[in-house]
Amino acid sequence: MADPELIRKTIADYVARFRDDRDGWLALWAADATMEDPVGSPVRHGIDSIAEFYDQSQASADSVELRADGPVIVLGNEASFRFFARPTLGGVAFSLPAIDVMTFDDDARITSQRAFVDFAMLAPAED
Amino acid sequence: MADPELIRKTIADYVARFRDDRDGWLALWAADATMEDPVGSPVRHGIDSIAEFYDQSQASADSVELRADGPVIVLGNEASFRFFARPTLGGVAFSLPAIDVMTFDDDARITSQRAFVDFAMLAPAED
Repeated sequence: MADPELIRKTIADYVARFRDDRDGWLALWAADATMEDPVGSPVRHGIDSIAEFYDQSQASADSVELRADGPVIVLGNEASFRFFARPTLGGVAFSLPAIDVMTFDDDARITSQRAFVDFAMLAPAED
Repeated sequence: MADPELIRKTIADYVARFRDDRDGWLALWAADATMEDPVGSPVRHGIDSIAEFYDQSQASADSVELRADGPVIVLGNEASFRFFARPTLGGVAFSLPAIDVMTFDDDARITSQRAFVDFAMLAPAED
């Protein structure tokens, strides 16, 4: 089982690196990880498809950053946490609440991710 | 697919009824629903086992109520949301953050629940 503190570190890095550290962000994932972002979309398999997600996300806006929002709850090799995705579009910052559910390998690399995020909830950022 | 507003209603009732409406709370579940609360514990199958969970939860404290905490994110027949479990123990209110992940049938009854909740995070309630 992974050290819960290592899982917390992976999640903190996942949030912090998304904005502009593509290689560092991708290094947090196991090579054969899966991603379902948003929940209900086709599941991506493997780091190349996850890299494609990253590139598409960043290309969809001037920039996209993530911001932590409250506790990270770790149970064994699983975790869930809420955060905000904050895309900047035409110079204006927007915010979108999200909840991620993840599993990890024993080295605290992400082996699966499912993201509860509804783009209808996108709104101008208030801070 | 269930109406997203019906899913939101089920979740609002799930939070509101937990404190003292056993029958109303149990009516929100499909008869053959599963519950994994907390994540990592043995999965309960069926309404009788879920009723046992309810009774054990309420017996573990003077009372236990749930309090909503931010957005409910609904995608198809799935949803996730954060809330606080608030047990009163020896007359003192405590609070514990939790994230539920649920699936629903087409009538917006809960067909599965997984609860991310870590009892090590229990703390005296601040409000």
